[in-house]
Amino acid sequence: MTDLDAVLTANRTFYQAFALRNPDAMDRLWAREAAVSCIHPGWPPLLDRAVIMGSWRNILHAPSALAMHCGGSQGRVYGTTALVLCEEIMEETVFAATNLFVLEQGQWRMVHHQATPIAVPTARPASPPRPQHLH
Amino acid sequence: MTDLDAVLTANRTFYQAFALRNPDAMDRLWAREAAVSCIHPGWPPLLDRAVIMGSWRNILHAPSALAMHCGGSQGRVYGTTALVLCEEIMEETVFAATNLFVLEQGQWRMVHHQATPIAVPTARPASPPRPQHLH
Repeated sequence: MTDLDAVLTANRTFYQAFALRNPDAMDRLWAREAAVSCIHPGWPPLLDRAVIMGSWRNILHAPSALAMHCGGSQGRVYGTTALVLCEEIMEETVFAATNLFVLEQGQWRMVHHQATPIAVPTARPASPPRPQHLH
Repeated sequence: MTDLDAVLTANRTFYQAFALRNPDAMDRLWAREAAVSCIHPGWPPLLDRAVIMGSWRNILHAPSALAMHCGGSQGRVYGTTALVLCEEIMEETVFAATNLFVLEQGQWRMVHHQATPIAVPTARPASPPRPQHLH
């Protein structure tokens, strides 16, 4: 298995933990030695592993949690760090996700996650939208 | 200068290019050999360097572009890759940003940027907000 395949497998493990509402699987996926961080949609960054795991437990156990699936994964390996970009589809809402992994004790483990709601799902525009105000 | 200092300097260069509306400085900051990607708020991921640079030219030259400054930077170095998290403050709106850099020809160069509007600016809550639906 190439590093890219292994990273994409780790990325699938993240979404399986989400789908199965399994905080233990989520915990196993996140790095234990490297510094971790997480930006849930609309939240300020979380920088502490215990706080991040607590946030996932709340999210995975929330009765109102919706089913979500992942598509369009793109992986890039930079030595012992790897980035996966993908779309998270949850009913009518699509999020663009950044998932960062490092190689730790022979395993690709997550060190960072950020998700942003996006206006345009899998069908991409021919050219990027022209922003009005930003950034 | 430590790697962490150098990465935080590279991160400041990103926001200086933004403040000075300088697309050439922005171009110089982004990696030329490593794969790059960018997720502007609300956009699908951009995965092509020329498209990303075109998006920055549009953003930096937009007459309606607002002033923006960066605060609360937190850097993490993972070997020859480094992550900087920070807040981008633009009038009433605060974005949480993920900026990823790789060491390329002795320089820390940007390979990925994502920004998400967040509800809570620099004054952090004592505990993370409890999400309603997600994620």
